[in-house]
Amino acid sequence: MDLIAALNWRYATKRMTGETVPQEKLNRILEAIRLSASSMGFQPYQVIVVQDPDLRKKIQAVANNQPQIVEASHLLIFAAWHPLTTGQVDDYMQAIARERGVGLETLEGFSNSLKGLLNSRSAEENFQWAARQSYIALGTGLVAAATEAVDATPMEGFNPAALDELLGLRERGLRSVTLLTLGYRNAEADFLANAKKVRRAKEDFFISLP
Amino acid sequence: MDLIAALNWRYATKRMTGETVPQEKLNRILEAIRLSASSMGFQPYQVIVVQDPDLRKKIQAVANNQPQIVEASHLLIFAAWHPLTTGQVDDYMQAIARERGVGLETLEGFSNSLKGLLNSRSAEENFQWAARQSYIALGTGLVAAATEAVDATPMEGFNPAALDELLGLRERGLRSVTLLTLGYRNAEADFLANAKKVRRAKEDFFISLP
Repeated sequence: MDLIAALNWRYATKRMTGETVPQEKLNRILEAIRLSASSMGFQPYQVIVVQDPDLRKKIQAVANNQPQIVEASHLLIFAAWHPLTTGQVDDYMQAIARERGVGLETLEGFSNSLKGLLNSRSAEENFQWAARQSYIALGTGLVAAATEAVDATPMEGFNPAALDELLGLRERGLRSVTLLTLGYRNAEADFLANAKKVRRAKEDFFISLP
Repeated sequence: MDLIAALNWRYATKRMTGETVPQEKLNRILEAIRLSASSMGFQPYQVIVVQDPDLRKKIQAVANNQPQIVEASHLLIFAAWHPLTTGQVDDYMQAIARERGVGLETLEGFSNSLKGLLNSRSAEENFQWAARQSYIALGTGLVAAATEAVDATPMEGFNPAALDELLGLRERGLRSVTLLTLGYRNAEADFLANAKKVRRAKEDFFISLP
């Protein structure tokens, strides 16, 4: 689907049919998320893919019992790295050196500037930054799903501490940030399915300077 | 351009040619940004569009003198609302009532829950939330630019307080969050133009549960 048409078509789907998203479509959505822009290319987050119905029921219980969590085909959890460490930077530099066939020493300036940035901030500030990065990936995933005519619901309405506990995320150096369900709208059950999209008019949204 | 191809093609362009992005392409990129997903549809941010070379020179001075700010065709500034107020919620509810042709009283529950959310958090927490929302729009804009074969540079490397001062953003109830330049890569001057994209492998980026 054309990008603008896809964005007009999509909405935060509250009720889904349970139908499974074909693997090919899911793969393209996940690939778009993996390729998302990220500050300095660091990608300080992971994406957790959950399909198991029993686990989704448990997750639903810490997410205001929202039905789309179990009615979706797949549930994605965007989880930011916490804490951010210089070891992660070293791993990233090694990946760049390997992928681009360059010596690690050529990356020293870049490495130092990324480490300097992380060291200049508190662990909480680094988490907030990593969480923002994951929102770029969330935005990319939302566009990708829509262009595949796959419905999606970005969700902040859950208890992150309880979800982290349920999935043991802190022990993995992660903190949950957002959920994204992928599936198909149940237009009969979802009162929003046929509601007009409301966005601020151009003249209220853009400011032209000078 | 196909979405995955576009994401592989794009990179954070450091040097641009100065060539102007055709109005038609710019309009589609801006429209995608305007249509971006946003928590509860609230869109708690504005997008400032700057083309004037003199103003861009001044902005460059508070953004580490990065050349793409003046070499771009257009500079976008994503600025979050600050503070968030119940009056903004009222305006939003009126827009929904108008667009969907429903009575304001049918939106009371929604209005109260959004107001409750804003009132439950500090002004700074609300700003962080609004900033995250603007990152969804940033992600959407990056995808839209790439599908139009327009280069783009998302930038966090600037002095937000100095930029807010320069543009009088605080007086408008705004705080700058990110910059996005739109234009065309200067492949000869930009050492990153031909560098291989480095992203973590699927098995290091996705976690399948259970």
